[in-house]
Amino acid sequence: MIRRLSLVGLGLLGGSVAKAARGLRLADEIVAVGRDRERLEPALRDGMVDRVTTDLADGVAGADFCLLATPVATLAALLPAVWAALPADAVLTDVGSTKAAIVRAAERLGETRPLAFVGSHPMAGSEQAGYRVSRPDLFRGATVILTPTERTDSHAVKRVGAFWEALGGRLVTLDPLTHDRATAAISHLPHLVADALVDAVVRMDPRFFEVAGRGFKDTTRIAASDARVWREIFQENRVGLTEALGAFRAALDHLEGLLAAGDVPAIEGALDRIRRVREEVA
Amino acid sequence: MIRRLSLVGLGLLGGSVAKAARGLRLADEIVAVGRDRERLEPALRDGMVDRVTTDLADGVAGADFCLLATPVATLAALLPAVWAALPADAVLTDVGSTKAAIVRAAERLGETRPLAFVGSHPMAGSEQAGYRVSRPDLFRGATVILTPTERTDSHAVKRVGAFWEALGGRLVTLDPLTHDRATAAISHLPHLVADALVDAVVRMDPRFFEVAGRGFKDTTRIAASDARVWREIFQENRVGLTEALGAFRAALDHLEGLLAAGDVPAIEGALDRIRRVREEVA
Repeated sequence: MIRRLSLVGLGLLGGSVAKAARGLRLADEIVAVGRDRERLEPALRDGMVDRVTTDLADGVAGADFCLLATPVATLAALLPAVWAALPADAVLTDVGSTKAAIVRAAERLGETRPLAFVGSHPMAGSEQAGYRVSRPDLFRGATVILTPTERTDSHAVKRVGAFWEALGGRLVTLDPLTHDRATAAISHLPHLVADALVDAVVRMDPRFFEVAGRGFKDTTRIAASDARVWREIFQENRVGLTEALGAFRAALDHLEGLLAAGDVPAIEGALDRIRRVREEVA
Repeated sequence: MIRRLSLVGLGLLGGSVAKAARGLRLADEIVAVGRDRERLEPALRDGMVDRVTTDLADGVAGADFCLLATPVATLAALLPAVWAALPADAVLTDVGSTKAAIVRAAERLGETRPLAFVGSHPMAGSEQAGYRVSRPDLFRGATVILTPTERTDSHAVKRVGAFWEALGGRLVTLDPLTHDRATAAISHLPHLVADALVDAVVRMDPRFFEVAGRGFKDTTRIAASDARVWREIFQENRVGLTEALGAFRAALDHLEGLLAAGDVPAIEGALDRIRRVREEVA
């Protein structure tokens, strides 16, 4: 399917793509690019990649399929160099958690040099990071959002979609702005809220953590994630996050108002409506 | 250890106590009391209880250990009848999610008829309810909070503590008011927030649920719980919940302020501090 697969970034996501692609023999050759050679060595030793380099242009040269898997704030900075170094017939995609900015940047670059870019977002993170926690089944059953626009090459969309499906992903297509609103609602907002839930306990009395049960642990698991990664996501998606925070505050105020009013049927009606919606998500 | 164990309420918690106590042979006889005889029959057929009755006084008469396992709003209403019907040397405890009100009610009853009451709260709920989902290992590894006061009989505290430990619980002792503040922070607030997170998505666009990943599912799992049970808990613990909501709003406002100011070191510092706190809870 792929002659040379270039992976820029070899953390949890890039490493998992390497392991899955190798296991499935999706590419004749896999090249990994990173800033720190030492961090790339384990994948080379494991045989999950064939070549590693810290030279971005060298790493993507000759690739027919290139995946950007660096933290979201780095993507935009890397994009021009990757764009210039890739062959004209290459397909380029990424794993960024926000999509409006990267798609806009790619379309701007496309005005001077046409290249097939398709925004991707595999919803398969973890509160852990790095190649050492990467695994070939990370994308199995995971939702992968593709964000083509009317300017995106439809053949490239098919190729990128087929790639994620081969890795076990379940495809959803959204325009970049809708993607950012949707991920703000179902990923970035819950993350910020989990952070605030942990901090609320600290503010009340840190000894209260001693009685935390499964509910608290589930609800706040994502608060144990990498600070830099999430600072970048929050900042990159501040428009979506602001809208989601508004909707969340309205929902919380509404529930609190019902409780303050002591309106039993209204409270149970609201909680039961939410329960039914949540059960559908299961 | 126990001659006659009376369980008032045979749902998830009461049923799990019956199954665990039977398996461990903690009681010579187990009697279950409920409002609906049909709902009690399965436990009788399973051999998990020896006798069932819908007559509260009959069900607790002759018990040396009585556990109230009804929804929290029902506890206070049942307490006087249970109090009057129990033998003078019986030990009485409960599984209520809030403790200040029930302990206060018990101490008021104790002024006219002394009886050994110890408030308990096993942190072992589930988003599912009913005897059919009860299981003997529900309390294995679960935190069980005991809420004795200076008026509580210390022998009874030991007996109730030994009972939960036999079922696999990990004991924590808190005064009733601290219990209610702690559970507001680590259970009731996260629950209300999970409800609001689900409702926020509904308010933005219900189609966004389509891209919900593990993070969203973990964070909002508790929003699929029974509406009446949680309406009662929220109302019973409105004082604690109001304090916890205040701390949560302050935490969220603080994080949002740092993001709005774009202060990278401050944002990452806050997120990293929260990450380290959360990792300790794991």
